Amino acid sequence: MSLVVVGSVAYDGLTTPAGKVERALGGACTYISLAASYFTRVNIVGIVGEDFAHEDYAFLDSRGIGLEGLERVPGKTFYWAGVYSDDMNDRETLATDLNVFANFDPKLPEIYRKQPYLMLGNIQPSLQRSVRNQMTSPRLVGGDTMNYWIQSYRDELLVTLHGWDFLLINDSEARQLSGERNLKRAAAKIRALGPRLLVIKRGEYGAILFTDYGYAWIPGILLDTLKDPTGAGDCFAGGFIGYLASQNADGHNEDVLRRAVVYGCVMGSFCCEEFGVDRFRTLTRDEVETRFADLCHVTAI
Amino acid sequence: MSLVVVGSVAYDGLTTPAGKVERALGGACTYISLAASYFTRVNIVGIVGEDFAHEDYAFLDSRGIGLEGLERVPGKTFYWAGVYSDDMNDRETLATDLNVFANFDPKLPEIYRKQPYLMLGNIQPSLQRSVRNQMTSPRLVGGDTMNYWIQSYRDELLVTLHGWDFLLINDSEARQLSGERNLKRAAAKIRALGPRLLVIKRGEYGAILFTDYGYAWIPGILLDTLKDPTGAGDCFAGGFIGYLASQNADGHNEDVLRRAVVYGCVMGSFCCEEFGVDRFRTLTRDEVETRFADLCHVTAI
Repeated sequence: MSLVVVGSVAYDGLTTPAGKVERALGGACTYISLAASYFTRVNIVGIVGEDFAHEDYAFLDSRGIGLEGLERVPGKTFYWAGVYSDDMNDRETLATDLNVFANFDPKLPEIYRKQPYLMLGNIQPSLQRSVRNQMTSPRLVGGDTMNYWIQSYRDELLVTLHGWDFLLINDSEARQLSGERNLKRAAAKIRALGPRLLVIKRGEYGAILFTDYGYAWIPGILLDTLKDPTGAGDCFAGGFIGYLASQNADGHNEDVLRRAVVYGCVMGSFCCEEFGVDRFRTLTRDEVETRFADLCHVTAI
Repeated sequence: MSLVVVGSVAYDGLTTPAGKVERALGGACTYISLAASYFTRVNIVGIVGEDFAHEDYAFLDSRGIGLEGLERVPGKTFYWAGVYSDDMNDRETLATDLNVFANFDPKLPEIYRKQPYLMLGNIQPSLQRSVRNQMTSPRLVGGDTMNYWIQSYRDELLVTLHGWDFLLINDSEARQLSGERNLKRAAAKIRALGPRLLVIKRGEYGAILFTDYGYAWIPGILLDTLKDPTGAGDCFAGGFIGYLASQNADGHNEDVLRRAVVYGCVMGSFCCEEFGVDRFRTLTRDEVETRFADLCHVTAI
């Protein structure tokens, strides 16, 4: 079943201990869509400037991603640049040039509105809500947020979250949003805000799924090569919701949800193996399935 | 089958965000033995001073722990004091008074020498080797070490490790010992030093077992209450080797090894629920089995 993905489409300047790339295709919407495209039909909603390259359109199109909702306007595409610490667990932002993204006011093409799955990338909470309200009656709605919105747009965010089925955030965001250091209590408080399903992403340590039935913790994957962690959390989201969409899931089957978390970890791990979105230029569905089986084996008791 | 445990027996001054205890029974040998005592007969080798309290002998004895190798000499018992950070992931040492432990020269009682399982707590590598050499032909030998020995007693440590079947260390120690940041490569280098089985303990993130067949990662347990993490790694070791001893394991059965890691995580998690060793004053084997089943469920895909 089809999935609508909303979020930033960007160019990134990436510096990690493994090297440097001046201008790589990036943005949450891009990463989520590419990861999800291994599982389901994806339609994106985003905005780019006149500098958005023909080959980048072509790459997204080659993955079967619907671009009708990717608006092109005068000006430049969102640009972000950052440099990672030696262990790649921290990063410093060097530049955030919003450019055309500053005026992003997502409007869903008519054919998007009746689609069943909606993933709201990390953007202003009221824009996330606006997109949600343009959808007729999605089967499963959820998204991501970040520390900036939690701190400075808290009230808006709380209204927005109320309408979500799932929320994907990292552990520091979960603690900030809930005001609770203990993750179990933090999860309970967040789920009481609306999202019945909560996934706390823990980077190299995997991800924890909280549902009515308790929690499942899928550990990370030990990579041979880690070049660039940019976008790994978004690729997790893409794998998670992409798999759920492929199963026509309503989010109530615990086994399907756990497998979705495993696929999330798998897609996040592939993302880190090359700079930017480059791993998705060669990745095959067979490789995805092999790593899924490997990760199941890693946790088997 | 019986297990011999060697290491420090101490009193600890503990300050955590959950409170403060001036003088709690502690030491690696104590924690390992208590955790292992839920699975198998344990005999300890250690040293205490004249201040070692009657009720502490009685407590260890009540858990069926053999104390014939616990030497009592004039002077004071090893004393350590520390204070934990707000998130309990770091700690500062306030006092390390070795006292009688400074002259620890472990001698195994005759009846210990033919026992099949040996766990060497974190002490000077040459003392660990001396103990190993006093054993006739143990089925499974291994232990723990720490950054201090890795840095300042490296050559001795390498000779010592050569005779071990298993090594249990945390991730920063694994990186320091191997000179490799990547955990998979670090593990391969360490296993080439001798220990066929390597467990990298990751605190709240669980533990990773490396064997000839690859790796297994058992995630942590999300606790409702975390009072004091002191001894959690040693309790992991006690659960791990205690379970292996209970199964008469030779360390080649992958399923048994994975279950041993789960029991390690389980015992480490209980340890954190109360100050010092207090959780083991009330913990039952039924509670251990319940949490084992819970953790298996957390990772089930």
